[in-house]
Amino acid sequence: MRLTLKQRLYVIIFEADTPAGKAFDVALLWAILISIAAVMLESVPSMEERYGTVFRITEWILTVAFTIEYVVRIIASEKPRKYIFSFYGIIDFLAILPTYLSLVFVGTQYLLVIRALRLLRVFRILKLGRFVGEGEQLGRALRSSRHKIVVFLGAVLSIVVIMGTVMYLIEGGENGFTSIPRSVYWAIVTLTTVGYGDIAPQTVLGQAIASVIMIMGYAIIAVPTGIVTVELGKAQGKTKEIICESCGKGGHAPDAIFCKHCGERL
Amino acid sequence: MRLTLKQRLYVIIFEADTPAGKAFDVALLWAILISIAAVMLESVPSMEERYGTVFRITEWILTVAFTIEYVVRIIASEKPRKYIFSFYGIIDFLAILPTYLSLVFVGTQYLLVIRALRLLRVFRILKLGRFVGEGEQLGRALRSSRHKIVVFLGAVLSIVVIMGTVMYLIEGGENGFTSIPRSVYWAIVTLTTVGYGDIAPQTVLGQAIASVIMIMGYAIIAVPTGIVTVELGKAQGKTKEIICESCGKGGHAPDAIFCKHCGERL
Amino acid sequence: MRLTLKQRLYVIIFEADTPAGKAFDVALLWAILISIAAVMLESVPSMEERYGTVFRITEWILTVAFTIEYVVRIIASEKPRKYIFSFYGIIDFLAILPTYLSLVFVGTQYLLVIRALRLLRVFRILKLGRFVGEGEQLGRALRSSRHKIVVFLGAVLSIVVIMGTVMYLIEGGENGFTSIPRSVYWAIVTLTTVGYGDIAPQTVLGQAIASVIMIMGYAIIAVPTGIVTVELGKAQGKTKEIICESCGKGGHAPDAIFCKHCGERL
Amino acid sequence: MRLTLKQRLYVIIFEADTPAGKAFDVALLWAILISIAAVMLESVPSMEERYGTVFRITEWILTVAFTIEYVVRIIASEKPRKYIFSFYGIIDFLAILPTYLSLVFVGTQYLLVIRALRLLRVFRILKLGRFVGEGEQLGRALRSSRHKIVVFLGAVLSIVVIMGTVMYLIEGGENGFTSIPRSVYWAIVTLTTVGYGDIAPQTVLGQAIASVIMIMGYAIIAVPTGIVTVELGKAQGKTKEIICESCGKGGHAPDAIFCKHCGERL
Repeated sequence: MRLTLKQRLYVIIFEADTPAGKAFDVALLWAILISIAAVMLESVPSMEERYGTVFRITEWILTVAFTIEYVVRIIASEKPRKYIFSFYGIIDFLAILPTYLSLVFVGTQYLLVIRALRLLRVFRILKLGRFVGEGEQLGRALRSSRHKIVVFLGAVLSIVVIMGTVMYLIEGGENGFTSIPRSVYWAIVTLTTVGYGDIAPQTVLGQAIASVIMIMGYAIIAVPTGIVTVELGKAQGKTKEIICESCGKGGHAPDAIFCKHCGERL
Repeated sequence: MRLTLKQRLYVIIFEADTPAGKAFDVALLWAILISIAAVMLESVPSMEERYGTVFRITEWILTVAFTIEYVVRIIASEKPRKYIFSFYGIIDFLAILPTYLSLVFVGTQYLLVIRALRLLRVFRILKLGRFVGEGEQLGRALRSSRHKIVVFLGAVLSIVVIMGTVMYLIEGGENGFTSIPRSVYWAIVTLTTVGYGDIAPQTVLGQAIASVIMIMGYAIIAVPTGIVTVELGKAQGKTKEIICESCGKGGHAPDAIFCKHCGERL
Repeated sequence: MRLTLKQRLYVIIFEADTPAGKAFDVALLWAILISIAAVMLESVPSMEERYGTVFRITEWILTVAFTIEYVVRIIASEKPRKYIFSFYGIIDFLAILPTYLSLVFVGTQYLLVIRALRLLRVFRILKLGRFVGEGEQLGRALRSSRHKIVVFLGAVLSIVVIMGTVMYLIEGGENGFTSIPRSVYWAIVTLTTVGYGDIAPQTVLGQAIASVIMIMGYAIIAVPTGIVTVELGKAQGKTKEIICESCGKGGHAPDAIFCKHCGERL
Repeated sequence: MRLTLKQRLYVIIFEADTPAGKAFDVALLWAILISIAAVMLESVPSMEERYGTVFRITEWILTVAFTIEYVVRIIASEKPRKYIFSFYGIIDFLAILPTYLSLVFVGTQYLLVIRALRLLRVFRILKLGRFVGEGEQLGRALRSSRHKIVVFLGAVLSIVVIMGTVMYLIEGGENGFTSIPRSVYWAIVTLTTVGYGDIAPQTVLGQAIASVIMIMGYAIIAVPTGIVTVELGKAQGKTKEIICESCGKGGHAPDAIFCKHCGERL
């Protein structure tokens, strides 16, 4: 059965199972990486001076290529509207917009780094490998932890707001705690153990409270870690729950052929 | 059966199951958030200059509203004394106090951020959802880890006091380690991997000991993490509680066939 | 049966089960805490100026008291030599030594913070509580992870030595990486995510390598955490392994009275 | 049966089971440690001035010794080519190269720290101990987590590139965010909670976004930790491998009664 041109385009652009489709996806990834590198290096003054024109030409060539790709995707897909408003469709559109906007507004070309999101396509290429399964497991674990993580983040934000205000009252503006939002920012920097040191407590009482926040931050990181670990353990266990038809018991390993309880074939 | 005014007030204010009760709680949460935002922004000099009056009016309106709410809560509850001395009752009282105190004492209006604690009411609104269960699981895991965490914190504090003193003797005042409490503060900053850099060892021996403290801090964070993870795993295992119909006791393993307390088949 | 004076002293000083013994231990803990606080505060110039004499008198009174306690301990114990060379005996001796040494050498009084180690006696007071069991569980988990942790620390030290040297060659002395030991110190500060910022890479290549070290440090913290968590899970499972005498199967919960496999009394 | 000279050399140099072989390996380790220490200290200006000659003589003596050892290893091994191109063979070669190169090029002697890799031989000495098993367990856990860790690192890099660019647009060059690569470097420093503080956001919006990055970094460290913990738990469970006598396959659960591959009683 011969495929129509549209069907052949669809297979190449949207699928990664055929050699042509895979080659297309790999070329696409390289184009995206080069495009991001060009945007990043263009922002370095010394590079801009020497290779500025090269970067801009690269950007324009790749943007035109991506635009053609975007149009072909719309043409090739069965339901163009569905593609346009899909997750990948919107990213594909946002990935070409900034270059055209930069003709009108200065600085928008940096928004091109949104193309980094296009790298998510890498998962498509790896479809046949183990990555999708692994990514799904991770995603499932994170999704089923989301309620606990919301509770945890709520607690962290409350601590940070109250502690930040207390530090504002104790240290005051002359020690860098010039306002409550800034003190809250400091509390976040401290609780997450980042510790820039651009603002640091100077008074003895302030340092004592800072110590409490640090030890707190050091200890409560255990909470999200514990949550994700437990969920990940469950997500992995869940992948394939096999029940023996003969004795009705479960808990079999994924590679089991016979029931470990009664010896019947599964 | 018609409810009396008092009963209707009780349902609206204290419960979140009816539409009116839920609407009241959501409005309350927004009022609290706006109130906290006003306090925080008031402390920013540039905002204070421009919108100072707006912030103070907002605070007063909300404080009066919260005061009315507090009085209605006392009237509507069956046992007013029980509400007043309950956890939420005390927070509700503390949340209106600072504004009135600010008439007499300067600066006390910042204590209003204690209202952040009122946000804990959010759990009431979510009562029907999964949050309470998740929060309880987290709470149970933390409660049953508390003995181990006390042992852990004791060990951390001992390390920090001894290491801080050693660094005070080695580095001395000219390198920023001006007193033992300050050196202990530095040791906490280092062990918890915060690392402000406001005090940093300068001598070779001091840097060697600092390296030991850092690696120690990097490694022992594993301890609270391990504790919470294990407890959380157990807390979650307990959720699907099997109760023996014969003796009414629970705590059975998921694969138990007979009750471990009385020997009856589950 | 009446106890001799020596026996009564032994019970009071070495045990914590009787009211007198417990009272003695609590008093001892407070004395140790006050003594450590006095040493710490003495090092603060402003405190030293005002309360210097008070601190020194406190130190001498407590040192004399601890000396008397030490002598009584030797007298009261059945085998004095065994006590003197025991772990606690050596700490007790080291805890009184610095004060006497300070008569001859300047500065040795700060070594008094070694008294912090005496706080380990707190575990004795809590003997009846759950702390000992928890501490033992933690200790057992750490002990059985020690081989893995040695392998891990060996890997960390190798990374740090090699990366530190690479950064020394790239950044050089003008950017603060004045020698290999100092660069290794920087690598430790970075890998453990402490990040003082007293030394920071300035060249683009140096920042790229620093980024690799940071992400490495961020990821490999998972290793000790994983080790301790797994061991802690096992240590907790091991506390009481009960085997059913009837069917020979294990895996029972610690509170099981009947075998969950066959229903026989355990 | 008497061994030939070649065989005896082989046993001493390549094995660690005999007293002579063990003594040789321990001596080798000390030589490597001394050699690394000499290289590191040579880079300290004050040490170089005083002991420079000692360091260089030590280096040359040890390099000659290592060269002889390398030649003997080639002679003693059955298949010299296999040894030369093996992992340890290449490291052994690289470990002597820099000293000879330093005759021609200045500064290459610092590359000697590559000798740190030779310390991996330590695992050979510990062959009889528990370390190999532990190391293998760790290795197996890390190997089976590698797909998940790649997904995780990909996500981290995407976050860091996008967030870095956003901060470049918000903060701009005057606040230290002089180019996108530098902003991405800052985002890595922040997300990994290192926080040097050499670059820190100054604008309110920048600090708000920095707060989001920090809390993100603080929370997502849970992901690799969870992955490694779960894999480590599985790797350890696998250690007590039950092999079916009938079909010779392993991978049975600890409570299996029948072989899951062929159904025979284990």
